[in-house]
Amino acid sequence: MRLLIVNGNSTQAVTQRVVDTARQAASAQTHIEGMTVRFGANLVRSRPEEVLAAHAVLDVLAEAQGSYDAAILAISLDSGLFAARQLFPVPILGMTEASFAVAGLISERFGLITLGSETTPLYRDLLRRYGAETRLAGWEVLELRGTDFLGSASSKDSKEAIIGKVRKLATETDSGVVVLCCAVHAGIASRIREQVPLPVIDGIAAAVMTAEMLARADLAPKYSIPLPGLEVMGVSSALQEVLHAQR
Amino acid sequence: MRLLIVNGNSTQAVTQRVVDTARQAASAQTHIEGMTVRFGANLVRSRPEEVLAAHAVLDVLAEAQGSYDAAILAISLDSGLFAARQLFPVPILGMTEASFAVAGLISERFGLITLGSETTPLYRDLLRRYGAETRLAGWEVLELRGTDFLGSASSKDSKEAIIGKVRKLATETDSGVVVLCCAVHAGIASRIREQVPLPVIDGIAAAVMTAEMLARADLAPKYSIPLPGLEVMGVSSALQEVLHAQR
Amino acid sequence: MRLLIVNGNSTQAVTQRVVDTARQAASAQTHIEGMTVRFGANLVRSRPEEVLAAHAVLDVLAEAQGSYDAAILAISLDSGLFAARQLFPVPILGMTEASFAVAGLISERFGLITLGSETTPLYRDLLRRYGAETRLAGWEVLELRGTDFLGSASSKDSKEAIIGKVRKLATETDSGVVVLCCAVHAGIASRIREQVPLPVIDGIAAAVMTAEMLARADLAPKYSIPLPGLEVMGVSSALQEVLHAQR
Amino acid sequence: MRLLIVNGNSTQAVTQRVVDTARQAASAQTHIEGMTVRFGANLVRSRPEEVLAAHAVLDVLAEAQGSYDAAILAISLDSGLFAARQLFPVPILGMTEASFAVAGLISERFGLITLGSETTPLYRDLLRRYGAETRLAGWEVLELRGTDFLGSASSKDSKEAIIGKVRKLATETDSGVVVLCCAVHAGIASRIREQVPLPVIDGIAAAVMTAEMLARADLAPKYSIPLPGLEVMGVSSALQEVLHAQR
Amino acid sequence: MRLLIVNGNSTQAVTQRVVDTARQAASAQTHIEGMTVRFGANLVRSRPEEVLAAHAVLDVLAEAQGSYDAAILAISLDSGLFAARQLFPVPILGMTEASFAVAGLISERFGLITLGSETTPLYRDLLRRYGAETRLAGWEVLELRGTDFLGSASSKDSKEAIIGKVRKLATETDSGVVVLCCAVHAGIASRIREQVPLPVIDGIAAAVMTAEMLARADLAPKYSIPLPGLEVMGVSSALQEVLHAQR
Amino acid sequence: MRLLIVNGNSTQAVTQRVVDTARQAASAQTHIEGMTVRFGANLVRSRPEEVLAAHAVLDVLAEAQGSYDAAILAISLDSGLFAARQLFPVPILGMTEASFAVAGLISERFGLITLGSETTPLYRDLLRRYGAETRLAGWEVLELRGTDFLGSASSKDSKEAIIGKVRKLATETDSGVVVLCCAVHAGIASRIREQVPLPVIDGIAAAVMTAEMLARADLAPKYSIPLPGLEVMGVSSALQEVLHAQR
Repeated sequence: MRLLIVNGNSTQAVTQRVVDTARQAASAQTHIEGMTVRFGANLVRSRPEEVLAAHAVLDVLAEAQGSYDAAILAISLDSGLFAARQLFPVPILGMTEASFAVAGLISERFGLITLGSETTPLYRDLLRRYGAETRLAGWEVLELRGTDFLGSASSKDSKEAIIGKVRKLATETDSGVVVLCCAVHAGIASRIREQVPLPVIDGIAAAVMTAEMLARADLAPKYSIPLPGLEVMGVSSALQEVLHAQR
Repeated sequence: MRLLIVNGNSTQAVTQRVVDTARQAASAQTHIEGMTVRFGANLVRSRPEEVLAAHAVLDVLAEAQGSYDAAILAISLDSGLFAARQLFPVPILGMTEASFAVAGLISERFGLITLGSETTPLYRDLLRRYGAETRLAGWEVLELRGTDFLGSASSKDSKEAIIGKVRKLATETDSGVVVLCCAVHAGIASRIREQVPLPVIDGIAAAVMTAEMLARADLAPKYSIPLPGLEVMGVSSALQEVLHAQR
Repeated sequence: MRLLIVNGNSTQAVTQRVVDTARQAASAQTHIEGMTVRFGANLVRSRPEEVLAAHAVLDVLAEAQGSYDAAILAISLDSGLFAARQLFPVPILGMTEASFAVAGLISERFGLITLGSETTPLYRDLLRRYGAETRLAGWEVLELRGTDFLGSASSKDSKEAIIGKVRKLATETDSGVVVLCCAVHAGIASRIREQVPLPVIDGIAAAVMTAEMLARADLAPKYSIPLPGLEVMGVSSALQEVLHAQR
Repeated sequence: MRLLIVNGNSTQAVTQRVVDTARQAASAQTHIEGMTVRFGANLVRSRPEEVLAAHAVLDVLAEAQGSYDAAILAISLDSGLFAARQLFPVPILGMTEASFAVAGLISERFGLITLGSETTPLYRDLLRRYGAETRLAGWEVLELRGTDFLGSASSKDSKEAIIGKVRKLATETDSGVVVLCCAVHAGIASRIREQVPLPVIDGIAAAVMTAEMLARADLAPKYSIPLPGLEVMGVSSALQEVLHAQR
Repeated sequence: MRLLIVNGNSTQAVTQRVVDTARQAASAQTHIEGMTVRFGANLVRSRPEEVLAAHAVLDVLAEAQGSYDAAILAISLDSGLFAARQLFPVPILGMTEASFAVAGLISERFGLITLGSETTPLYRDLLRRYGAETRLAGWEVLELRGTDFLGSASSKDSKEAIIGKVRKLATETDSGVVVLCCAVHAGIASRIREQVPLPVIDGIAAAVMTAEMLARADLAPKYSIPLPGLEVMGVSSALQEVLHAQR
Repeated sequence: MRLLIVNGNSTQAVTQRVVDTARQAASAQTHIEGMTVRFGANLVRSRPEEVLAAHAVLDVLAEAQGSYDAAILAISLDSGLFAARQLFPVPILGMTEASFAVAGLISERFGLITLGSETTPLYRDLLRRYGAETRLAGWEVLELRGTDFLGSASSKDSKEAIIGKVRKLATETDSGVVVLCCAVHAGIASRIREQVPLPVIDGIAAAVMTAEMLARADLAPKYSIPLPGLEVMGVSSALQEVLHAQR
């Protein structure tokens, strides 16, 4: 299977990080490529940047169409996810939706770790949209330090902070598993595995696993949304073509 | 007050229609201008088009910044509304949020008329986001006919259909007022006034009224979202500038 | 427009205060009169007093019918609001419903400041009734001091306490605006404006603004509640007459 | 035990009916008296009349205080119930709250029969207030015929209609029991017992049973609501006295 | 009335305790017998033990069928309650459902005291299943000490801890009554009565009161669940017979 | 991987059917064995049978412990699922939880087909427990015919009925995918694939896919439920041992 990872943040280094993590999580038969959005924020943290990211991931998915059998949105706000599913006839997975789904299959209730209190309102929306509120046992927020987001996220300090948050969720809540959000945290879950009392779900790994599962099962969604008379202008010709096609 | 109306659909004729309706609803001191998005769908009806519209309205609002004291998004899905409020230091109103707010001040419960069953999932999101579910007494969906959206919406047939839906809501539900959605319906509410048993709220008129109210009260939101290190690329320079500014 | 303000608390001095505040908020064309309920509690703080207040405001509204084009209930529990709307063919506004509506048009989420923890269960009801729970970002309760409610509420100490609460909501929650409840707080929001980091909504001002908006738009509710055989006894003749009329 | 039944509707004949029904349901040791409100509607069916009823039942309860060990509000909207509990140190029961409680102890889900679609919004409030929404299996509405409410409610036609509704709920929903609302229906449940496939709960009987249970268990609520400085005017001296007392 | 108390925990001493408490709460005409489950955990505290308890109480109820007119499940998780009601044509009461019902008839909101944080997820389910979430004012958890559950629960230390929790709920929440859960706490509520500011509901007493009430009212549920072709094997012959009978 | 399928219904032929279906869905490396519960109903359809099934699946899982690396409960009510996860240190999957999770990853909203209206209350519980209510677009119920459940479910009539229900959900709701419940329907989804306009999820296949995914990711839950003093009696020695072990 050819799996495309679309980084919704415009930082190339994050693309590399998530691709590396995805390759570790993937099975041998899965071929993984990464692409970075052509416009938008270096790290999406609030509503306006998310608006751009949603457009930007559709733009990349359209551009690359035909070159992948499934795709992952490497942006933990899952920006553009439901829209993408209506446009592309292959499985499209979001990091956080996939993480919640996997967490739910493991344990009755899960703990959540997010990055940056400015993103809290957006994750709150995701919890509601995915019906995950009743299964959320606890929520811890890490704060961003400095502006080297990727470096900071993979620093020893950050690793220690995450370990501390997992332990807190294990002690103070009835979480049976923990979801660690944010693309810049890709790969950390597997590195702290021995030091924490609960399994920790990596959003990229969860998305890869679920993408492989869906691709193998041949369960792509079928939409039949009648949009006669639709005309779209001012976007990339690839995206325009996809939008003008029958859904 | 200078009030900007941003049509989130890329159809110029709709811009003209909503501007005309807005001018009728506005007080003498309000100066109204209309702008059409520079990219996106001629009529936004499903998630992918909505993704584009959200970006496109921010693009216009940034471009025109400084030329308006308040703005209205002329797209009944209120695409980009919460994002816009975080970027621009003036009141920004959405047609549907404004309509629900006005309806709630008039009656305990309201009826809803929307256009095109393909948009139903998006209105369902709005009802939940605005906390309007408990006050919704009934919901009727009109179907689009043909591809001349504007012509069709203001046809005699369409007017009759809307009147029928209002009467149905009056008879079969405990609606005390009706919200008529969709930008292409702008201006119809006032024309059917004498023929229906309930007051009907025009989204454009509701947005104008609430914009005038907020502008006069000098009650623009203040956000303090710390986004150090944010870098945005690939969008219009006006939008980039707004995004890079302190929030 | 002739706007009647009905103080649901039986304290004349509060009537004066809310009328003064309303006049400052109103436009030049609005003529404001205040009336105090003829029975009930000096300050309504719990369910039994609220029961009286609901009856008492209907009593005043009936008594004064014909002398006003819109009315405001100056009691932040909005006692009798939905009942009043079914009886009188003009816009009737409640301080708290109007405040929540205005807050929602300004910001995604709002903070709430109420007076007296004994009133908490009643405000909880209002949040649910108005569908405002999902938009509430934080809630702070001020405690009443002494029995000179009006004097205390407008004291320097009280002003400082309110400023402190607004700052707390700005720092610890994602409120973009704050609603300050209770009739005895009328007029304070505008006086602390320069000292707080968020816009603060005055319930009386919100009610005046929305009343002017609705009156101008000519959007009074129409009810058709069939109550054949209804006979009401033992209330004022004005109220009896209103109740016996067709709805 | 001395049990007072306060008819919240101002119709004496209804008082007689509910007292007769209560006496049949009560145990030998229970002494039952009935009182009718001194003001308000002959049959409460919508919000304005309910506002009066809430005041009127407090008025009667205060007037008669000392003469009863528990009280029942004979009005199926339970008007004034929560307020009364804060004022009087004895068990106070509402017909509908008691019915829902008894229904819940019998079956996982229950069916509801109410009288007059104009009262639907008020019952909807009760379902939410009592947390009974998740246990409601079905809801049937009978319409009032003519203006002889009591005569009509106990007519053969009405009895047949109720039997039909119970059968419908038994067939089409997973109701294990049915709640029959409205004071004018008092006594009907026991008369149709042999003709229906589900147990039917009479609101008056449910209130009597639960009142006897609570009185015997000596489980009156204790409130400690501090209301220093409260002054109430313009109500009956008995009610004023109760309101001025410590809670 | 012959009232059977089925202890869902396999500890005989607990059966004795709940029977003693039940006899104190019961009226003179009620004859009470206790039975202990034939398999399962000595004290049910988490989901796996609850699964056994649900089966075990059905087993006892079937074995004893014909010897009782109503039954109480003496296990505060109400394990098997809804299932039992579908099998046996007499009132079946659960401690916690009965407690919530009684609490709701006394006060608008109640406080909850449970035993052992490991049981918290199960009580959370009960609150939701019974629709009691909106009426819950506060929740305190006592921790089990040692393994002599019954001795510990009735120790002086435990009594003091419970009194402390009731006082805390009275001071910090708007509880008007408190529900004290867990079968091992049977009988404690009446012993601390004079030392606490709120009425405390004993689960066993609540179940006895409500069982007497329902038995007297002759309001057993009627189910008509068509299960043609049902064959059950490997359970006690009494239970098999009950399951094979028409429902 | 060794995958155990535990049929929660006591019908051997159903075990064979689900094992066959599982083997078709599984990858080559997965070795599948089936076991049937040792007691309980031939087909679980209502609460009492479900109580037995929950115990019975724990019984089999304990008996077979050590012989499997993951397990699936072949009973679409997922009876005993959350309890099993607390007892066994390997992934345990339920048909319906897995189906909802897979459906959610494919489409914003899904349709549901269940078998036998008598099971409706139990599926309603599952929808709420899994937070799937907001994503449910429509629900169709097939009725059981005759008592040869397995034969009937795989008959031509039944296949036609299922195809009809899928088409109905595609036409009348915004389902992007359909979940087909009930163990006796195992294998049907793949056989009707070409005749329906939406992907249909087979519960057994969904459970196999998710079990393989979790097993490979090595993401078993870790619980730390302290249950000092727990003693269990009267169950199989294997189950007793598991229950007595540390969790």
